[in-house]
Amino acid sequence: MPYELFYHAKIQGRGEFVRLALEDAGADYVDVARSGEAGTAAMFALINGEGVERPPFAPPFLRDGDLVIAQTANILHYLGPRIGLAPQDEAARLFLLQVQLTVTDFIKDIHDTHHPIANSLYFEEQVDAAKLAAAKFIELRLPKYMSYFEKIIVRNPEGGRYILGSSVTYADLSMFQLVAGLRYAFPNAFGRAEQNYPRMIALHDEVKERPRLKAYLASDRRIPFNEMGIFRRYSVLDP
Amino acid sequence: MPYELFYHAKIQGRGEFVRLALEDAGADYVDVARSGEAGTAAMFALINGEGVERPPFAPPFLRDGDLVIAQTANILHYLGPRIGLAPQDEAARLFLLQVQLTVTDFIKDIHDTHHPIANSLYFEEQVDAAKLAAAKFIELRLPKYMSYFEKIIVRNPEGGRYILGSSVTYADLSMFQLVAGLRYAFPNAFGRAEQNYPRMIALHDEVKERPRLKAYLASDRRIPFNEMGIFRRYSVLDP
Repeated sequence: MPYELFYHAKIQGRGEFVRLALEDAGADYVDVARSGEAGTAAMFALINGEGVERPPFAPPFLRDGDLVIAQTANILHYLGPRIGLAPQDEAARLFLLQVQLTVTDFIKDIHDTHHPIANSLYFEEQVDAAKLAAAKFIELRLPKYMSYFEKIIVRNPEGGRYILGSSVTYADLSMFQLVAGLRYAFPNAFGRAEQNYPRMIALHDEVKERPRLKAYLASDRRIPFNEMGIFRRYSVLDP
Repeated sequence: MPYELFYHAKIQGRGEFVRLALEDAGADYVDVARSGEAGTAAMFALINGEGVERPPFAPPFLRDGDLVIAQTANILHYLGPRIGLAPQDEAARLFLLQVQLTVTDFIKDIHDTHHPIANSLYFEEQVDAAKLAAAKFIELRLPKYMSYFEKIIVRNPEGGRYILGSSVTYADLSMFQLVAGLRYAFPNAFGRAEQNYPRMIALHDEVKERPRLKAYLASDRRIPFNEMGIFRRYSVLDP
């Protein structure tokens, strides 16, 4: 039975970190909400349905048989060893989960550059706050997170190429997505900063050439970056 | 060998969710940074030291022998079955991790009511944005999260008292902390809303009477809420 991924049909968003893992692994999966209106209805039925014993708070979530698992990092923690994108041993899995949760924090900071006050308000209603938030993000948070991930790769005793060990894990796919997203959202600021993170850039470049991922990125299954997701390109936020 | 918890010495913060678990379990642990300046230095040495192979991004983190585990939910995921605050089976552990990660998201939203633009700016520098952020939080995010946790308890087929099963897990201790913190930060807004979450209030009331936790809460190991942590009482944010 295929894995069923439930996530919004028109954005990469947090679901993309799961899509990248499923695609890179060549896993058998269905992207339920992208299969049409019935799929989107099925997604919201699992969140809002009266009969669901353990409903997710929000997408993304994954169904594997009877099990429904929500929260991006939790999904990847579950999938990792099953699809060949994480080792089996506990210490390694905990470290990957730790890194992925740091990605979660970083993504929230990235998202909040365009929606610092409330997600329920339009960007245009909080653009002054967003300008200040983005400037502080570019000055402080961006280098703090990027330096951290760079350091993790540098200190990896097995070659200095990956987040963990000597082969690609789901966390490496997330590093690819961070670099791709930051290039989209902050071409100026991130363009100036990229040279500080050579291992991250090398990892991004390696990941995007992996055959299954390369095919995915060239397909219409890869939703283009747009101004509804986490990474948005607003020129006023990237002077 | 005792567990070693590394977290800031003067706030409850995210570390408190781990402290509550260790205290409730009667686990043998040292709160390293609270043991004095050497403890704080040891904490930052693990984050910033050149020789650390897998450094944490930030506190809290836990050391158990050779293993260093960062990210609050990851620490609780690790500790849970070891200290009797989570079952052993995978589906249950994944669900608790999912709930705890939803707590993580909620806490970030709570924190951002007083620091919507940047953590690096003072509250006083972003008070207008904070007023709007807090109003939107009280209107939308607070009821959304609280209703979700309430629903999880109601739908628990084993009695409707706890997040999972028929005994207290680390996630229940986190529910206690959410209620206590919201009462501190938003006495007016949360005071008006409390009646909508009777299971959450009952769980809070039960947890605080657990003997070891009651002793902890009455001790000077429990740092009082203050205006440096996640939950802050600013009257302008709680009209």
